Amino acid sequence: MRVLGVDPGLTRCGVGVVEGVAGRPLTMVGVGVVRTPADAELSHRLLAVEQGIEQWLDEHRPEFVAVERVFSQHNVRTVMGTAQASAVAMLCAARRGIPVALHTPSEVKAAVTGSGRADKAQVGAMVTRLLRLAAPPKPADAADALALAICHIWRAPAQNRLQQAVALHTAHPTKGRTA
Amino acid sequence: MRVLGVDPGLTRCGVGVVEGVAGRPLTMVGVGVVRTPADAELSHRLLAVEQGIEQWLDEHRPEFVAVERVFSQHNVRTVMGTAQASAVAMLCAARRGIPVALHTPSEVKAAVTGSGRADKAQVGAMVTRLLRLAAPPKPADAADALALAICHIWRAPAQNRLQQAVALHTAHPTKGRTA
Repeated sequence: MRVLGVDPGLTRCGVGVVEGVAGRPLTMVGVGVVRTPADAELSHRLLAVEQGIEQWLDEHRPEFVAVERVFSQHNVRTVMGTAQASAVAMLCAARRGIPVALHTPSEVKAAVTGSGRADKAQVGAMVTRLLRLAAPPKPADAADALALAICHIWRAPAQNRLQQAVALHTAHPTKGRTA
Repeated sequence: MRVLGVDPGLTRCGVGVVEGVAGRPLTMVGVGVVRTPADAELSHRLLAVEQGIEQWLDEHRPEFVAVERVFSQHNVRTVMGTAQASAVAMLCAARRGIPVALHTPSEVKAAVTGSGRADKAQVGAMVTRLLRLAAPPKPADAADALALAICHIWRAPAQNRLQQAVALHTAHPTKGRTA
């Protein structure tokens, strides 16, 4: 399974591609950051994010795209740009028919460190260890994108089982009920 | 000047095309709503918004796109979807090299009714009058999109003068200063 993780942002959009399956060592395929100038017009920044994401999709052909789920509660000043950059990433994937999964920051932290409240350094350290890298990827947005991809690979089997159960229940509504 | 106004939203994205210049009667070229099903996946909804906006751009070839500026303060529950739909509209315009302008809801209300705190009915009534329509466009999102386009046509001369002044000042920084 090859997953592109996207840590959305207008100034720095982290991107990381990880390959592997749950329960086996994972491989980093690529990592980077799509940057857009803070003084550019918003529509041009969104266009630059799109062009960056398209390049990553063209080059690495992921089967899944995992994007951080953005909440409106925290960090009000930057949350709109983050939401808009995430929309561009989702749109690029959907246009190619690539399934998109959203994971919350605490799901990602819990997946790679065991704690939903881990700090950036801890996430960076675990990403480095899990992907057997020489040093933590910089900046933190790049490490977070890899963490998202890892989270998706590890959560995917559970999500797929859940989706299958829902599909089965929808097709045969009486199955799964207590008689 | 032909302007596509976009009142962004995932469930209902209002779109309206108005043609004219400030100080002359305006003409409505088209009005409608791009809808996406609330139970669809977010990435698919964004894709449907993109396809809808692309159709409007293809059909009406606007020279400007005016989008409502989304604030994170109000209506926390729906603001993320609104921000993401607005990102899609801005992206579609930027890809075609069409200039994008953002106007706040109060700027739009003030432009068409004279008051930044006008209600929906008042905006609808003025849009109907200014465009000489038989009845207010429904739903309100469609009327709001037309109001955005009208606002842009009326504010554009001032904005252009401002941009020219900024450009002049940047080129000749001493001009405009008191000697």
